[in-house]
Amino acid sequence: MAGENAARTAAQECPGELVSAGGGPQRPPERDRPRRGRPGHDLTAVLAAAVRLFNERGYEATSMDDVAKRLGITKSSLYHHVSGKQELLRIAVDQALDGLDDAMAEVEQQQRPAIDRLELLLRNSVLVLAERLEYVTLLLRVRGNTAVEQQALLRRRIFDAKVTKLVEQAQAEGAIRHDVAAATAARLMFGMVNSLIEWYRPRRGGAGELADAVTIVAFDGLRTRR
Amino acid sequence: MAGENAARTAAQECPGELVSAGGGPQRPPERDRPRRGRPGHDLTAVLAAAVRLFNERGYEATSMDDVAKRLGITKSSLYHHVSGKQELLRIAVDQALDGLDDAMAEVEQQQRPAIDRLELLLRNSVLVLAERLEYVTLLLRVRGNTAVEQQALLRRRIFDAKVTKLVEQAQAEGAIRHDVAAATAARLMFGMVNSLIEWYRPRRGGAGELADAVTIVAFDGLRTRR
Repeated sequence: MAGENAARTAAQECPGELVSAGGGPQRPPERDRPRRGRPGHDLTAVLAAAVRLFNERGYEATSMDDVAKRLGITKSSLYHHVSGKQELLRIAVDQALDGLDDAMAEVEQQQRPAIDRLELLLRNSVLVLAERLEYVTLLLRVRGNTAVEQQALLRRRIFDAKVTKLVEQAQAEGAIRHDVAAATAARLMFGMVNSLIEWYRPRRGGAGELADAVTIVAFDGLRTRR
Repeated sequence: MAGENAARTAAQECPGELVSAGGGPQRPPERDRPRRGRPGHDLTAVLAAAVRLFNERGYEATSMDDVAKRLGITKSSLYHHVSGKQELLRIAVDQALDGLDDAMAEVEQQQRPAIDRLELLLRNSVLVLAERLEYVTLLLRVRGNTAVEQQALLRRRIFDAKVTKLVEQAQAEGAIRHDVAAATAARLMFGMVNSLIEWYRPRRGGAGELADAVTIVAFDGLRTRR
């Protein structure tokens, strides 16, 4: 019972952070699975607890034992859901990366001016971060010590290169200034987005206003126009 | 001999990161101290090695043994320089905080419009970060687990509150737009600055150009003016 409550609490504390679309966990929701004698802890709750622990203590310092204890289940129950810590990490960082890649794919299909696509990408990236805060936080702390982490870093680099390309296009179209290098502009914009993990708290809401603020600063600056 | 080389290397790899002004280490440079039979490892080298280890492995996971080993000296030699790990952390984060406080003190004395003071503060903060990269990196990872860390977080909060106040002044003077809340504007500006620790590498230089880029984006935005 304690375990059940712990899992429910973990899931309830992260509403909307897991999305079913894209590369998310493939396991169907608990209500669709056959009931057993003891209620299962579905992957969503396992993931939420693991990611929270990874962010609190660091990935290296967290064991599968710690995750099981946090959920109040046995380690063998935990291995019923995932093959190990690396798989937990992979699913978790994919939550963040898939969100960002979806945002990129959306603007890549558009025929609008590059600056408009860039602005939409920046706005949607803030929304992805706000919605999947714990996952993005974990992603941004990944340092490349394992194959999963290296793969995540590679996907980040590909994303960054695409952002730089969009800035270059917008510069070529005359919509973005040339006195800041495209790669620097891309890094500063997303540096601002990523810094939100330090202080944004989803319970307060206001992700839309935050996305407005980020795009205003990045594209128009804080100075009043005279 | 190996230890001597290790210490020299550590010191040489961080040129200019330690400043003598303000709250820096009070120990005089090695050449001014009486020579002993064995060359001493001065506090600058000890600090550089410790901060690098803290950033690589985390403060918690680093022991005084690790620091001594990195320097190739005995633990008792290490305790000749500092009372312990907490003192190393305190001196290190003070290097970053003193730099930022000096930048703030400079603009607080000025009688210019708030927006000009804010712009100078932002520019000088980038230069402090570039010059003391390892120390600022450590500061930004501090989470408040010890008294030293809590003190550092308190000093950061005081700094942030002063930035917000400057933004409010600039808004009252009509120089900064009102559609972004002052506290949000302050956080986004310094979020952009702090994100530099993720990719700025001092060996490449260009801190001045980077400071230009950050102030351009923050105050004027990337969009070309029509």
